[in-house]
Amino acid sequence: MGDLYKYIMKLQRYFENPILLPDLSSEWENYNVFNPAVIYHNNLFHMWYRAQGLDWISRIGYAVSKDGIHWNRLKQPVFIPEDAHDERGVEDPRVTELNGEFFMAYSAYRSNDRDTGESAYKGGEITPMFARSSNLISWERIGAMVLGEDNKDHVLFPRRIKKRYISFHRRPPKIWLAESDDMHLWPEVFMRPVFGPRPDNGWDSKRVGSGGVPIETEHGWLVIYHAYDSDHIYRLGVCLLDLDDPSTVIHRPKDFILEPKESWESRGDVPNVVFSCANPVVGDIVYVYYGGADHVIGLATANLDDLINFARFG
Amino acid sequence: MGDLYKYIMKLQRYFENPILLPDLSSEWENYNVFNPAVIYHNNLFHMWYRAQGLDWISRIGYAVSKDGIHWNRLKQPVFIPEDAHDERGVEDPRVTELNGEFFMAYSAYRSNDRDTGESAYKGGEITPMFARSSNLISWERIGAMVLGEDNKDHVLFPRRIKKRYISFHRRPPKIWLAESDDMHLWPEVFMRPVFGPRPDNGWDSKRVGSGGVPIETEHGWLVIYHAYDSDHIYRLGVCLLDLDDPSTVIHRPKDFILEPKESWESRGDVPNVVFSCANPVVGDIVYVYYGGADHVIGLATANLDDLINFARFG
Repeated sequence: MGDLYKYIMKLQRYFENPILLPDLSSEWENYNVFNPAVIYHNNLFHMWYRAQGLDWISRIGYAVSKDGIHWNRLKQPVFIPEDAHDERGVEDPRVTELNGEFFMAYSAYRSNDRDTGESAYKGGEITPMFARSSNLISWERIGAMVLGEDNKDHVLFPRRIKKRYISFHRRPPKIWLAESDDMHLWPEVFMRPVFGPRPDNGWDSKRVGSGGVPIETEHGWLVIYHAYDSDHIYRLGVCLLDLDDPSTVIHRPKDFILEPKESWESRGDVPNVVFSCANPVVGDIVYVYYGGADHVIGLATANLDDLINFARFG
Repeated sequence: MGDLYKYIMKLQRYFENPILLPDLSSEWENYNVFNPAVIYHNNLFHMWYRAQGLDWISRIGYAVSKDGIHWNRLKQPVFIPEDAHDERGVEDPRVTELNGEFFMAYSAYRSNDRDTGESAYKGGEITPMFARSSNLISWERIGAMVLGEDNKDHVLFPRRIKKRYISFHRRPPKIWLAESDDMHLWPEVFMRPVFGPRPDNGWDSKRVGSGGVPIETEHGWLVIYHAYDSDHIYRLGVCLLDLDDPSTVIHRPKDFILEPKESWESRGDVPNVVFSCANPVVGDIVYVYYGGADHVIGLATANLDDLINFARFG
């Protein structure tokens, strides 16, 4: 601890990144694989990743791993678009284990032409959606969190607070909080901003959005988030939120913990992007999985205590 | 019921067989896929299948399905040879769920040259082995059932009897029973034959071996087995065994329930073979998965009550 933590804390990249690449032999994932959800369950790492073929439609694939590094993928996707409301893709999954069930927050990217096709959910271009599973493979759609606006980057907290389900979401340029009694209705009256960009802070001056599932610690919810600046460079940072009311910020370090540096983070389908939807904790290590330039998947890690100290004192 | 069952009871093939083919784009499974284990767990069908590439070495792949018909395979195998004792392949998995754990019975096909390489198990050419898993994907070797003889076609019963684990095995030409207190030691003193070929009965006149996990019914253990005749044609039949002592035959119909007829059962890597390692019961349907000619995987079903009646009165 001490002064060091105030200024220096960076995630450490795995030395053989990227850990997952597009598969040229597979039509639905031969172009980009990125922005995965990852949980550790039953002694295995389970990953759901966003994948695109040359049709540029996002589908969600599943992979499993014993060590979190070497992955074995299913040949076919496990979650795909179903109608006009998500015709252009299901994107950026974030999976939360809660009471023995698994909840996937994902974004539905709707049809170009709003007037054609039947759509179950009349949202904006991008609608924040939830699905549930009891077995990790088959997913049942629950529905939308909000309709009629562009909203995404939502993720369910891993436990209820005061009996309510809690989720981040994103009303640009800020991270917001939402609450629900049943995972179906997320009343507007409960919605409130958590934190936004810091105009005078460079890397997170323009827009912020949530990362993976918030990590519960004795000092508060440890949250990894993404942000971009005026050059549209995506970086990752951390924030510590109140355990009982996660819309209250306890501390927010000024510095980021990861920025694009490697060639596969700087160049890809969207340049200069590290974007994370997953930060599972296994033992005392936080595994941060992230999309590099919307094209491949990388892994960077931190010691949990180091990351907590940085979130408290950085 | 009635007289009909005495003479007519055949499994019904799924109309779009085979349900799994070799994958030409995948080195380890581009030649043959056959003889799978299948269980129904957590609302999904889980399959472990024997696969061969052009090296003719058997590895075990995993596939998952919502309906038992359409399968999504992992790109890499989940269980592979580890040393000289199984260097030529891990074969014919049979998976049993017991007390929340999963046990795989498989055959280890040892190195050609007995004098080279380190081997953990000094068996015959073919050694009956067990492995266990808590998550369906990662498997830990338990060890051999017997050593020093060619033995295979073993399968663990789905519950203990008088506190002992029970397993079939095969000492040619008969099906045998074995018992164990701990899944490690299977003492010779407990081993005894169950039933053998019937020299005067054509289709099962030469050799018999067990099929999938025995099905517990109020009338006894319903057992599907394979047999071949003097023309080396493999067929499937049923037998009913005593619930408390499965080495006691209650009834054994004279007729078979499946024989090679389709082109993909008659022609393949080994001609004229239907060979099953899996008969999970879902609802009132018995799903019999089987290798066709050691080359592809087929599915045939029966109503459970019909099959029980045939086993009792056929």
